[in-house]
Amino acid sequence: MCGGGDAVTHDRRNPEAAIAEAAKTFSNWGRWGDDDRLGTLNFLDEGKRRQGAALVRRGVSFSLAQQFNMDGPQRGWRRRTNPVHTMLDTGADAALGTQGMPHGIGGADDVVAMPLQCSTQWDGLGHIFDHGKAWNGRPAELTVTSDGDLVTGIEHMASQIAGRGVLLDVGRVVGTDGELPDGFAITEEHLQATAADHGVTVERGDIVLVRTGQLARVRRGGWGEYAGGPAPGLSFTTAGWLHRSEIAAIATDTWGFEVRPNEFDDAFQPLHQVVIPNMGLLIGEMWDLEELARDCAEDGVHEFWLAAPPLPITGAVGSPVNPIAVK
Amino acid sequence: MCGGGDAVTHDRRNPEAAIAEAAKTFSNWGRWGDDDRLGTLNFLDEGKRRQGAALVRRGVSFSLAQQFNMDGPQRGWRRRTNPVHTMLDTGADAALGTQGMPHGIGGADDVVAMPLQCSTQWDGLGHIFDHGKAWNGRPAELTVTSDGDLVTGIEHMASQIAGRGVLLDVGRVVGTDGELPDGFAITEEHLQATAADHGVTVERGDIVLVRTGQLARVRRGGWGEYAGGPAPGLSFTTAGWLHRSEIAAIATDTWGFEVRPNEFDDAFQPLHQVVIPNMGLLIGEMWDLEELARDCAEDGVHEFWLAAPPLPITGAVGSPVNPIAVK
Amino acid sequence: MCGGGDAVTHDRRNPEAAIAEAAKTFSNWGRWGDDDRLGTLNFLDEGKRRQGAALVRRGVSFSLAQQFNMDGPQRGWRRRTNPVHTMLDTGADAALGTQGMPHGIGGADDVVAMPLQCSTQWDGLGHIFDHGKAWNGRPAELTVTSDGDLVTGIEHMASQIAGRGVLLDVGRVVGTDGELPDGFAITEEHLQATAADHGVTVERGDIVLVRTGQLARVRRGGWGEYAGGPAPGLSFTTAGWLHRSEIAAIATDTWGFEVRPNEFDDAFQPLHQVVIPNMGLLIGEMWDLEELARDCAEDGVHEFWLAAPPLPITGAVGSPVNPIAVK
Amino acid sequence: MCGGGDAVTHDRRNPEAAIAEAAKTFSNWGRWGDDDRLGTLNFLDEGKRRQGAALVRRGVSFSLAQQFNMDGPQRGWRRRTNPVHTMLDTGADAALGTQGMPHGIGGADDVVAMPLQCSTQWDGLGHIFDHGKAWNGRPAELTVTSDGDLVTGIEHMASQIAGRGVLLDVGRVVGTDGELPDGFAITEEHLQATAADHGVTVERGDIVLVRTGQLARVRRGGWGEYAGGPAPGLSFTTAGWLHRSEIAAIATDTWGFEVRPNEFDDAFQPLHQVVIPNMGLLIGEMWDLEELARDCAEDGVHEFWLAAPPLPITGAVGSPVNPIAVK
Repeated sequence: MCGGGDAVTHDRRNPEAAIAEAAKTFSNWGRWGDDDRLGTLNFLDEGKRRQGAALVRRGVSFSLAQQFNMDGPQRGWRRRTNPVHTMLDTGADAALGTQGMPHGIGGADDVVAMPLQCSTQWDGLGHIFDHGKAWNGRPAELTVTSDGDLVTGIEHMASQIAGRGVLLDVGRVVGTDGELPDGFAITEEHLQATAADHGVTVERGDIVLVRTGQLARVRRGGWGEYAGGPAPGLSFTTAGWLHRSEIAAIATDTWGFEVRPNEFDDAFQPLHQVVIPNMGLLIGEMWDLEELARDCAEDGVHEFWLAAPPLPITGAVGSPVNPIAVK
Repeated sequence: MCGGGDAVTHDRRNPEAAIAEAAKTFSNWGRWGDDDRLGTLNFLDEGKRRQGAALVRRGVSFSLAQQFNMDGPQRGWRRRTNPVHTMLDTGADAALGTQGMPHGIGGADDVVAMPLQCSTQWDGLGHIFDHGKAWNGRPAELTVTSDGDLVTGIEHMASQIAGRGVLLDVGRVVGTDGELPDGFAITEEHLQATAADHGVTVERGDIVLVRTGQLARVRRGGWGEYAGGPAPGLSFTTAGWLHRSEIAAIATDTWGFEVRPNEFDDAFQPLHQVVIPNMGLLIGEMWDLEELARDCAEDGVHEFWLAAPPLPITGAVGSPVNPIAVK
Repeated sequence: MCGGGDAVTHDRRNPEAAIAEAAKTFSNWGRWGDDDRLGTLNFLDEGKRRQGAALVRRGVSFSLAQQFNMDGPQRGWRRRTNPVHTMLDTGADAALGTQGMPHGIGGADDVVAMPLQCSTQWDGLGHIFDHGKAWNGRPAELTVTSDGDLVTGIEHMASQIAGRGVLLDVGRVVGTDGELPDGFAITEEHLQATAADHGVTVERGDIVLVRTGQLARVRRGGWGEYAGGPAPGLSFTTAGWLHRSEIAAIATDTWGFEVRPNEFDDAFQPLHQVVIPNMGLLIGEMWDLEELARDCAEDGVHEFWLAAPPLPITGAVGSPVNPIAVK
Repeated sequence: MCGGGDAVTHDRRNPEAAIAEAAKTFSNWGRWGDDDRLGTLNFLDEGKRRQGAALVRRGVSFSLAQQFNMDGPQRGWRRRTNPVHTMLDTGADAALGTQGMPHGIGGADDVVAMPLQCSTQWDGLGHIFDHGKAWNGRPAELTVTSDGDLVTGIEHMASQIAGRGVLLDVGRVVGTDGELPDGFAITEEHLQATAADHGVTVERGDIVLVRTGQLARVRRGGWGEYAGGPAPGLSFTTAGWLHRSEIAAIATDTWGFEVRPNEFDDAFQPLHQVVIPNMGLLIGEMWDLEELARDCAEDGVHEFWLAAPPLPITGAVGSPVNPIAVK
């Protein structure tokens, strides 16, 4: 295993310059017209869905979501709590006959309150801004107000996210005992070596899932700083590959998709700043890739039919999601 | 068009007896073992997923979810509100530079609070009880407590609900101008006539979508009593067909799946009482079938790939869902 | 009874000019220093509390809060819902012994989710802005961000709001059958006539309660448009009196304190725009003055001890409150 | 300073027996009739309010509430989170002119979601049960259902809680540097010694505030296990004093009012089990007594006028509260 850090060629002291250069070089502003609300999801077309569906050979399905409950990783940063699920009616009320319903029918109902970023989720295009600009160059303040994302709300992605999924199990191929250490920066070379090892090719319009193994680790040892602390993740230097590969979306088993600590002395999620508002890339975080990865390691097939439909909450800048992979 | 009511052969004054008979006749208790948590989802197997995936011919995808927002149909019954979506950070804060982040990055975050039954959803197996019994004969009070559904929580269905979908557009085939009137009871005959008209066959393990047209109507005229009032829907008499057909799940474009007012003098959702706790049938409600139905009417193909993964909220007795159909 | 509208001397077509003039004339900016967070609460001093306490003669107490529940008046405007109260544990669980606690102890716990403006409440000083300026001339965008009111959050008023309360039952004195009709603009003359009728004097530092009778009316006839629709209330022309009288706070039994429709052709709560950001006046809304008013009518005493402590929710721009009057 | 533990004369191995004996001995069931909803609040009468108001000598007021925010002590036990306060509109939106309102008015609105037990609060009479019985001997399952407390909801206490407050600063009198250590059991002797030291007498109908100093300690060192862990608090043996003294209510600066660990080998809040369902005693927890206690230590006056009105959330088994003490 080699450390990922050596691939960083930017000045660690100047994230502003590195971000500005990458943002300009890898921008997709205007690529799909002024009114675009989909970003790189435009790469996921009907042909890609036909290709994806054809990957269903055994008919076995995998949920890639963590469970949504109070035992999740959130610890309050940015008022992000774990989901609070409460009952409006229960079986106890039903059994005791206190529900006031006829002919022996009883019911249970429930409610959830949760930050949309609390667990397995998609980042919407309105989730991150670069110097006050949202995706496609729109003014952030006119795009995402207190009323929500008025332009690129997640509801606009309600029908599209079904296509070919590709798993790059970097943890298994590059890591130790299947896991990358916290702080490990995954470079383009690591991604390509992993794909080569798997015998899979990443293509235009794919949904790429990168497994680092961090989720397996915190499941053994406790959440610790899973929500925001050190983690393996994509290097800032992968921006070019993310742009060039023309993938539709990418998701990881970590809180923040990119390596943490970030690869600059004083920075916060610089790759997000490049790829969401400038590239229009759809990012998934906190996906549970464990069971799928075990299956892929067993049968050697790392491509599959993937549907990951967000909840169309009007104006949301993200959405919890239960992605389903079928092989 | 004939009214659906004539098929009802039960004594309108005695829902208790009719429910008891149907519950006994159409029970699946024990069919999949004492520990079963899936009910009729057991019918949806790997072969069914292969069959479903093979239906992806054009690669076009449809979201079958209504949007989740404050403009929804809920009016407070059982404390069911519409979803409340609020922002934790906005583009305005980002543009004004008040977020305290480095190098020009800005972010928006959000929160939702919603009853799990507020909009397009699955009813979990713990949602309805029959005389204090939950699915598979379990005591309701030990199954669904204030801590949620301890046995059949929706999280157990996280990976399964992807397979062959079949649309039965009863509104188009039997109704007037594509819609059934409120109070119209859809019988087995209506379902079969619709399938015959479509040239489609309902098979074991299918997810059946029944369009009544009510959603189209309230979209024109306002929600009115969509959440709980009169509606077209399945007749109580379809319990036999629902059992015999061995479908995995059924969903409608109405609030409550079954016809309302119910077909007894004093009753509340008697078909629910038979099919959820006794038959173990998965029911979807408030699905938006309009766009899919138009497409099916155009190309004459009423079968498709369908993935409708619930959010795995631990212990939930239901889940909002964004079902994706791909043809 | 005379219509209140005749006192309006402003140009109905030009709210901008009328508001600008009143805002300038009745401004208290700087009056209590640049760092002030209390506005007119500064008038409520220790002497006032001694005076208020001395008004406790019989020892009888009145709650001036409406109940907080789903049956409230909110209908979704600005995402304002009624309070949603859900249980985390219940007596049913306790009775059934499913709580896992020792020696027969059982417990019930609960949660509430509610807009802070949903029912009986105080408007904080950060609730309303005038052309981007908050109370004391502060920039609105630096005062109230997505993190809340960083300067004048309601928590700064946690200890102060206890003193002398004065009820002006304008409904009883000026209205018909104890009620003013919707759209009735209460002028300074009405306030003074009411005080004279009661034999009470409004003094510096008082908390003035103005009863219109609208709450009694909607309790008989249903909420209707209580939350935002037509209502009796203070005339825009009372701004001078509100300023000159140096009262600490004012509260009404209506949704919005001022008369609605507002007294301009195209306007929205112009008196709020003058008195909150410019005058720094604390406003209470949706108070239930019925029982207190009946008692005052009976014993002829319209002054009392009043404690109306807001919940110190950090950064809140308002707070639900249960005001207690003691006579 | 002596350890409080020596006063415990019960068999540590048999909480069931000790609780049963105390419950029977100190029961108030039926004392105020079968329909009673107030418990010991019945002791707080009009004379008590006159006495309390007469204690206002200087006019200085104190808030006894902690602030309600995400930085509170809750860590998820029983799904108790800290309060989540989110904005519906902000000053940023107003300053940027994106709110769509006329004549330069802008507004900010907000929402809170919180467990009613999350911070400074009253325990309602429906909060604790003894072997399935609620206050006054009512069946727990018929008293507190998923719909809330149908009988003794906190709304029934909306108007009463204003009277004479007495501070017993046990931390200052008995502790070291003003604080009792965690696990210190406060006995009747400690309470009486403290009252004697203060020169104050606890009387029938009083609201007694017991300061342990724990809140001061965790403010210095971090919350740690404040929410549920070891703490100083009332000994189980004080049940007799609590009953005999006929106080209306008691509140502490700790999470749980009674000493933790509890004074039995395997127990959970045994004093609660005696005093809430059997005695009908109103208990306040997590009150911030620091500023008031400093003032009382300075002027030597430990009695005051106290108003602590709960929010009348219909059916709630507790309520956040901002108690106001005036001296």
